[in-house]
Amino acid sequence: VISAWAVSGLPEIVAGDDLAALILAAGARPAAGEIVVVAHKAIAKAEGRVRALADVVPSPRALELAAAGGRDPRLVQVVLDESAEVLRDGPAALICRTRHGFVTANAGVDASNAPGEDAVVLLPLDPDASARALRARLGAAGAGGDPPAAVLVTDSFGRAWRHGQCDIAIGCAGLAPLVDWRGRRDRSGRELAATWIALADEVAAAADLARDKVSAEPVVIVRGLGRHVTTDDGPGAAALIRPLAEDLFR
Amino acid sequence: VISAWAVSGLPEIVAGDDLAALILAAGARPAAGEIVVVAHKAIAKAEGRVRALADVVPSPRALELAAAGGRDPRLVQVVLDESAEVLRDGPAALICRTRHGFVTANAGVDASNAPGEDAVVLLPLDPDASARALRARLGAAGAGGDPPAAVLVTDSFGRAWRHGQCDIAIGCAGLAPLVDWRGRRDRSGRELAATWIALADEVAAAADLARDKVSAEPVVIVRGLGRHVTTDDGPGAAALIRPLAEDLFR
Repeated sequence: VISAWAVSGLPEIVAGDDLAALILAAGARPAAGEIVVVAHKAIAKAEGRVRALADVVPSPRALELAAAGGRDPRLVQVVLDESAEVLRDGPAALICRTRHGFVTANAGVDASNAPGEDAVVLLPLDPDASARALRARLGAAGAGGDPPAAVLVTDSFGRAWRHGQCDIAIGCAGLAPLVDWRGRRDRSGRELAATWIALADEVAAAADLARDKVSAEPVVIVRGLGRHVTTDDGPGAAALIRPLAEDLFR
Repeated sequence: VISAWAVSGLPEIVAGDDLAALILAAGARPAAGEIVVVAHKAIAKAEGRVRALADVVPSPRALELAAAGGRDPRLVQVVLDESAEVLRDGPAALICRTRHGFVTANAGVDASNAPGEDAVVLLPLDPDASARALRARLGAAGAGGDPPAAVLVTDSFGRAWRHGQCDIAIGCAGLAPLVDWRGRRDRSGRELAATWIALADEVAAAADLARDKVSAEPVVIVRGLGRHVTTDDGPGAAALIRPLAEDLFR
């Protein structure tokens, strides 16, 4: 049995907040084998990854992309600043590869739940590092020789051929991001050819089901997957990024 | 709190099996507000959606695609038979749009867990209809005026820019496949611009976490999302397919 529940009672997160302390103060005590799933915005805000559009001067390229799409040129400039490459100019958003390598709408730059009328929230600079740092702080509050609770940092990503968004992992510490069944055999003894599970992304999706988008519930705890929680922080969500050379749809 | 657990004790599914009867015989009693998540292979096998490669005569196009990719031309022919369009000839698989509109590796044709050395399992012909039929049969075993348990049919799909697969919904009855937060406002009163959750896909992913790929656990029950379970069967997983006209990556 797996289960997931949101941590209630967290305050609005602002720059400089100690997220681990706030989670513990809210009464959550992540145990060994559990996974603490944090919406990236809470991390980004605590890390000050917020920009005020009033301070942004759009480049000629931003002005051009903004005019073509009816967008705010200052927002487009922030998106360009966060992007390694713009893959598509879609009707709803620019589809970008971020500097981390994630392919997502507007490079993850988002105005909803931002602090202030004119602010946008960026993705954390290094979400795997953010996950590792939070894990270290939460784990120190635990006890025993078991691996401390894992940490995921998540964002809602759209999908190329499907409507709607699913939460996926952009940062990960202490959880195997991928589980490889390839080479193992099915019940008939035949090799499981294409069974390579994006475990961290499935956990991110499961956690999102336990959360309310409007109320302040950025943190969800998932229980029942202790067999995938590791003592080492592991390769992080970076391991989930398909290398450019394997990209059939860039 | 949401929770998910696999139904144990199901037999290997064969053509003509009454899946609802088998689920009930296994002791599962899906209650109102719960979601019964079924791996598509159990549905496909019960519906006889299996082909023996020995009976397949590859076309010239199948022979050509097979030679280019070092593939079994009979498997390629089955993939072509299931495809409306081949989008990419990838190193690991043909990326196809199925006749239903799903974009997935090898049009969902899969040899793992297939019945027999030479057999492959296809996607159900109409997974939404399969979900509705199973829901009606399971619901009839329940009681009271509440909506009967919803049913999802799932498959593991790869993703264009990420490694690994996540389970998604290819069939759906009685669950809102998408939850639309657009137009609602965040805590600051700002509109939630791009918040349109692929709920059915997140439930599919969550359910996969409770399942073992090798042991016979095609059925998972998810509890805690009753607010999204509807009396009507609703639009099904077909509503999750992005129309061709909006496809930026075909």
